[in-house]
Amino acid sequence: MAEKSLKLTGGLKFNEAGLIPAIVQDTDTKEVLMLGYMNEEALRRTLTSGEAWFYSRSRQELWHKGETSGNRIMVSSVWLDCDSDTVLVIAHPTGPVCHTGNRTCFFQELIEPSTGKSPQEDA
Amino acid sequence: MAEKSLKLTGGLKFNEAGLIPAIVQDTDTKEVLMLGYMNEEALRRTLTSGEAWFYSRSRQELWHKGETSGNRIMVSSVWLDCDSDTVLVIAHPTGPVCHTGNRTCFFQELIEPSTGKSPQEDA
Repeated sequence: MAEKSLKLTGGLKFNEAGLIPAIVQDTDTKEVLMLGYMNEEALRRTLTSGEAWFYSRSRQELWHKGETSGNRIMVSSVWLDCDSDTVLVIAHPTGPVCHTGNRTCFFQELIEPSTGKSPQEDA
Repeated sequence: MAEKSLKLTGGLKFNEAGLIPAIVQDTDTKEVLMLGYMNEEALRRTLTSGEAWFYSRSRQELWHKGETSGNRIMVSSVWLDCDSDTVLVIAHPTGPVCHTGNRTCFFQELIEPSTGKSPQEDA
């Protein structure tokens, strides 16, 4: 199903701030670890270095993930979605990805407010 | 690791357009299927109906996924990330999620432009 393609220099749709959302998924556990944002330079560095780079929207600067914590994200492959405005980074994290120390940033479950149940429990 | 919490009525950070990105992951295969955007109403409907709703940025309207194609997304659970600005929907798709007919929207691999290799091949 993979259609290998070289789209870095054209075709990618960065948003009005010059960013594209980047989902990070663990190569081994398949867990979704985080969503970050990349500008063109962060994406270029990610593809050429094999480590994930992002653009920090709060600090407004390039962000080499793990620069401070030491928990880097070693990239296996990068995928582009059908409308070219989101990337998926399949990668191996060298430590917890979340700044809270959790393995993934998605550790809080949202439940249905009136019943207090997960959606599947209503089925 | 799960911290069950009820945050729908507060705490979620919708962006300046009133939207929050929503990653959809297959419950069974763990494949990342798509990234959509939800406004508060789409998220509420997703949690209460057990089927994924989004907000279509191009059509500027609520979008019940599968309304036209019949390929719905049956939601198992919804997770919020550490900084409350992204959700992860764990779900079972009843058919191909992508409008191209692919199972996932992420079917195009991005390769390193100068070498034509995936990042891992450089390691």
